[in-house]
Amino acid sequence: MIVWISGAKGFIGQHLARYLVARGDTVLGLGHGLWPEASVETGLAYWLNGEVSGSNLNSLRIARGLPDLVVHLAGGSSVGVAMANPREDFLRTVATTAELLEWLRQEAPRTRLVAVSSAAVHGTGHAGRIAESAPTRPLSPYGYHKLMMEQLCRSYASSYGLPCLVLRLFSVYGPGLRKQLLWDLCQRLQGKPASIELSGTGGELRDWTHVQDVLRAIEVTSELASPEMPVFNVGSGRATSVREVAQTVIAAFGEAGVRSELSFNGQVRAGDPFSLVADPSRLQALGFECHVSSQQGIADYVHDFLAPAHVGRSG
Amino acid sequence: MIVWISGAKGFIGQHLARYLVARGDTVLGLGHGLWPEASVETGLAYWLNGEVSGSNLNSLRIARGLPDLVVHLAGGSSVGVAMANPREDFLRTVATTAELLEWLRQEAPRTRLVAVSSAAVHGTGHAGRIAESAPTRPLSPYGYHKLMMEQLCRSYASSYGLPCLVLRLFSVYGPGLRKQLLWDLCQRLQGKPASIELSGTGGELRDWTHVQDVLRAIEVTSELASPEMPVFNVGSGRATSVREVAQTVIAAFGEAGVRSELSFNGQVRAGDPFSLVADPSRLQALGFECHVSSQQGIADYVHDFLAPAHVGRSG
Repeated sequence: MIVWISGAKGFIGQHLARYLVARGDTVLGLGHGLWPEASVETGLAYWLNGEVSGSNLNSLRIARGLPDLVVHLAGGSSVGVAMANPREDFLRTVATTAELLEWLRQEAPRTRLVAVSSAAVHGTGHAGRIAESAPTRPLSPYGYHKLMMEQLCRSYASSYGLPCLVLRLFSVYGPGLRKQLLWDLCQRLQGKPASIELSGTGGELRDWTHVQDVLRAIEVTSELASPEMPVFNVGSGRATSVREVAQTVIAAFGEAGVRSELSFNGQVRAGDPFSLVADPSRLQALGFECHVSSQQGIADYVHDFLAPAHVGRSG
Repeated sequence: MIVWISGAKGFIGQHLARYLVARGDTVLGLGHGLWPEASVETGLAYWLNGEVSGSNLNSLRIARGLPDLVVHLAGGSSVGVAMANPREDFLRTVATTAELLEWLRQEAPRTRLVAVSSAAVHGTGHAGRIAESAPTRPLSPYGYHKLMMEQLCRSYASSYGLPCLVLRLFSVYGPGLRKQLLWDLCQRLQGKPASIELSGTGGELRDWTHVQDVLRAIEVTSELASPEMPVFNVGSGRATSVREVAQTVIAAFGEAGVRSELSFNGQVRAGDPFSLVADPSRLQALGFECHVSSQQGIADYVHDFLAPAHVGRSG
């Protein structure tokens, strides 16, 4: 089938393109960045460097016809960046979705839309696993904009019958991710510091979800897109503290001879909820389980980082 | 004090401008439309015909300095129009608010913002009076966009400390309103039809709120704008059915010699919740009560409509 990926040059987008091409789909990508090697690297049939706009979506249609499925990954991708420039994050996350939905309404009302959202919509004040029906209390512009994106999808789904689906991803990581905690830790440990200090208390809990599990979740759920707009929280349901993550990374560096003392400064970063762990029940009801444990996945990430081929690999 | 009104040329905007000018404020207006008579009609110190954009907001500042208060009325104003063109409604309601908030964040972080929202954010499934804490289940793009506008305000209020306030207005009417049920009824009855058919069952309930009461509510609440962003549902708490409203209008026309039989087609209009009645407790706790009963206010509306001066009056 024909799949369009918005934000295809991003971390998840590149993985998804390869995954879908490998299963036989024709995949077209839209997003920002010069990427002459897109086809070689991911098998994309078409890469369009540009905004999610009506005219660019028309260009994709002219290239290969209407899509069966759109996976909408375009949008802001950092709590900190959104906090520093909320206007830009609004434009990337909300305004692009408005463009996409209006185009789908007018040109492709039967195309399924998978809108990729974030655990950040649940925000603060959750103890334990978070079900899809749990309150949405974002703690940052990033989370608010993802929530607004979801609501825009629900508006179009309910008023115009567009088949939509929302996936709220919890702490996605994996090879190629060049931002956030794992990347920052690896970057710093590469310099072989005697000690390393992180913000927060170390007790913050996240549901570390490997990108390969995310790809499988997209595959399993995408057929369920409908005007009722099902929502799935995508995670394993297993909480891992920042301290555990950091210790796993430091241990993996230890195998390479790096010794570093870990400490925490106790200061909470603005926009960071204390605990974000998915209740995976709804996904499990589809027979889906996350396969990659955080211990294994994080160790693999570090080994990949330390491998000689690392330098120069695209992120 | 200096007050800016976005959407000042609209129905509520014009009333608000006159009200604030009468109490001694310097009022500047921004919105769409040629309006050379703005100052004569409303006492506006400045009218800028244009989008809510950073450059236009800068122009207002250059004219008279930073505002103490912004009342943000700009946005879509019709459920039906939004349903027919959701993209335009999104731009008017959500994108303008994004522009305004970002400008306030950067240029005027101490200016109070009153964001005027709608009962439509509560949407469907409410029996009886609706408190501010009641679920938000919009039934139309119009309602979704107002909800997204509120969330954008909450995002900026909580992350950047902007003093914000949200007022959810319930079925506002009054002199000069040239759309919706009252206007449509008057327009049709002017033709002296033997019978008149309305959509719906006639049992639909609304909390008819006179624009003069809305102005007083804005005045009473605007000092409460804060980073906690209080929300007030603005209505009397009295439910009036569409049938009662239509009968009041027909009775008032009857005094002018018009006789018309009323009927309902039983078909629900898309996007129209059955019941939208405010729980006024939170407003009442401030000592506020609506003064104008729907019977009196609607009869006055019709008398105003039938007065000789009616023809040619601006809407």
